[in-house]
Amino acid sequence: MINILVGQSGGPSCAINASLAGVISAKTQNSDIDKVYGTVGGIQGVIDGNIVDISSYTSEEDLSVLKQTPAMALGSCRVKLPKASSDEKNKYKRIVGTLQKYNIHYFFYIGGNDSMDTVLKLNKYFAENNIDIKVVGIPKTVDNDLCVTDHTPGFGSSARYLCNTISEIAMDSKIYPVKNVIIVEVMGRNAGWLTLASAMPRFLGESFPHIIALPEVAFDEKAFITEINELLAKQKTVIAVVSEGIKDEEGNYIGMSTKSGVTDSFGHLYLSGVGKYLEGLVIRKIGCKVRSVELNILQRCSSHLASKSDIEESFLIGQTAVLDATKNGFTGVTYIYERISNNPYSIKISSCDVSLIANKEKKVPKNWRSVYDKEVMQEIASYIKPLMDSGVTVKYRDNGLPLYLDFKG
Amino acid sequence: MINILVGQSGGPSCAINASLAGVISAKTQNSDIDKVYGTVGGIQGVIDGNIVDISSYTSEEDLSVLKQTPAMALGSCRVKLPKASSDEKNKYKRIVGTLQKYNIHYFFYIGGNDSMDTVLKLNKYFAENNIDIKVVGIPKTVDNDLCVTDHTPGFGSSARYLCNTISEIAMDSKIYPVKNVIIVEVMGRNAGWLTLASAMPRFLGESFPHIIALPEVAFDEKAFITEINELLAKQKTVIAVVSEGIKDEEGNYIGMSTKSGVTDSFGHLYLSGVGKYLEGLVIRKIGCKVRSVELNILQRCSSHLASKSDIEESFLIGQTAVLDATKNGFTGVTYIYERISNNPYSIKISSCDVSLIANKEKKVPKNWRSVYDKEVMQEIASYIKPLMDSGVTVKYRDNGLPLYLDFKG
Repeated sequence: MINILVGQSGGPSCAINASLAGVISAKTQNSDIDKVYGTVGGIQGVIDGNIVDISSYTSEEDLSVLKQTPAMALGSCRVKLPKASSDEKNKYKRIVGTLQKYNIHYFFYIGGNDSMDTVLKLNKYFAENNIDIKVVGIPKTVDNDLCVTDHTPGFGSSARYLCNTISEIAMDSKIYPVKNVIIVEVMGRNAGWLTLASAMPRFLGESFPHIIALPEVAFDEKAFITEINELLAKQKTVIAVVSEGIKDEEGNYIGMSTKSGVTDSFGHLYLSGVGKYLEGLVIRKIGCKVRSVELNILQRCSSHLASKSDIEESFLIGQTAVLDATKNGFTGVTYIYERISNNPYSIKISSCDVSLIANKEKKVPKNWRSVYDKEVMQEIASYIKPLMDSGVTVKYRDNGLPLYLDFKG
Repeated sequence: MINILVGQSGGPSCAINASLAGVISAKTQNSDIDKVYGTVGGIQGVIDGNIVDISSYTSEEDLSVLKQTPAMALGSCRVKLPKASSDEKNKYKRIVGTLQKYNIHYFFYIGGNDSMDTVLKLNKYFAENNIDIKVVGIPKTVDNDLCVTDHTPGFGSSARYLCNTISEIAMDSKIYPVKNVIIVEVMGRNAGWLTLASAMPRFLGESFPHIIALPEVAFDEKAFITEINELLAKQKTVIAVVSEGIKDEEGNYIGMSTKSGVTDSFGHLYLSGVGKYLEGLVIRKIGCKVRSVELNILQRCSSHLASKSDIEESFLIGQTAVLDATKNGFTGVTYIYERISNNPYSIKISSCDVSLIANKEKKVPKNWRSVYDKEVMQEIASYIKPLMDSGVTVKYRDNGLPLYLDFKG
């Protein structure tokens, strides 16, 4: 019999608990698994010994509730492990202590490219120190910026939210007979996948959004204003979707002066406010009615608009990771999606070396940055549409609130 | 045979097109109705002669699509008619010209308290000038601030959006083991109904939101900071829902200095940014992690989260207004909901003099402003819950985008 431990790390999504449900469900598929433990607060929970037994949550009912719970039922962290050679606080030893205390054979870590750094480092440390604990990554991120995998668990649900919401915003914005500009600020620090998702109405045949600003393409404020003026000469409403991470030619964030400048523990700048900055710019340069909408955390936590295929695939990749890794004794790998075909849409789940994903970022490829090109639009639509094509049905409690599961108390 | 004209006015909601669908559907219930015309852009469309024939949209299919279309399929305006005695631009004469050109017998105007001012003034003008055209109001506003009626068409859908979204934000905000504050800014200039709706998770038994700031209650920045500090001493996350219109003891808007100060044509201050202002305040005074989320237009246009009872009632009040007014020859009235019972929830639709609603605002009553009182919470929950209790199923087009109807081109 073996015990497994699972943790969640990084930023939330609507699908990361579906992967957790998949991990838990594996217990019923592999009778060698005795206990399924969860670490509360990711790797920090392992360091601190904050472990809960979640072995009993294998019922259909519990798993389905977990699948519709946004964010992380086990909590998260943004902790970057030091190199083992400079581990002054003995984090590695404390991790090993916890894992041995609970007799853990496999540690599954659900996270993005930063979290895969943890998988990579732990795997290296265990190998170098002859510790027989396997470490396996399960990907997640709304940003869709992980390498190797066709797409990331969580992206489809955010894409579905964005596509629907932009459609609704477009209806809202065109009711008055006055020239007006709507600027929608979308997440995505360096990779424009979520911006592409918010442009899906256009890629699917609508006229909007009229302006699409990816972080991969240098943003020119003057050209932006010129483009809006040209559009307003022939139409009433201009809808622009802009990434939070747009930068100028020199690589400086647009509207940097209005931002907080705080950085997180991975050294990423905490961004917000490019929408408000551009709103001010349009008011000063054009003077028409303008509104900015920051979709903020809504685009990653709106589980009521989750994509059915995203949730099902996220469940499956969690389950497959456990079944496949425990069967084959894998360590230092992460699981990925490979797209088999678009029509009908099908994928398969396989594994790859975690070093191919850890600390790496997949940006929107160069040939997809010409977002106003008709062929490019069709290619992007073919890529994103199957990931967000249908929705889930949310279960509610008797009191009318959505039913969620939470292990962190 | 008679012809009717319908218009939409004021700010958008998810239910105002359901009322329009109800108006159109009346044609199949009253064989005296020949043409159903729509004015594009509210009363301004009547002044300008911008009229479309919508008589043919009576199929189940068209009506159901219209019911799920957010905002206004006929467009809107924010036009306040002058007094007839100071009508320098001959607006009244132009209105009469258009109405007579299309041989209109009844004009139905769907709108809020400002739009009911138009109904009131037109009715007075027609009476004084012996013009036999009836004018009838159909209420709408997400703000729920209309007098006489139990609640307003559109409020239930926004309430459903807010309650769901706050539940999701709560999950998103409690994943990290650090003290943090979330400030959610909700619409409602002077009336706190939407703020109450966003507090529904707490009224239904959850611990959040922890702080509820209504525009009817003087906001004290010092007390706000003290309250947060006290809460953070015993818990990790503090969620505050605050109305965009909160004011200090002297009646000055909180964070006025950071706002644009632009006023609309009714003299209302255009508000945004109290959330960002309070975010800055918390950073300066407490220094913990803090995030503000402005729900912005999402809370009024998220038709995918519309309330089923709201959409059905909004349809019914539109249909009833036409059938009842044409049967009885009513003019100068508006239609309202009366609540018959809470358990089971039931309402009836009746009419009242439009002067009882025009230009008046229904605030949250004094005895409901003690929002942390247990009995008050239960009373508010009993009032709001039936209005947002279940959802709609959105129909999608083949290309994956939601199906909408739009008459304004």
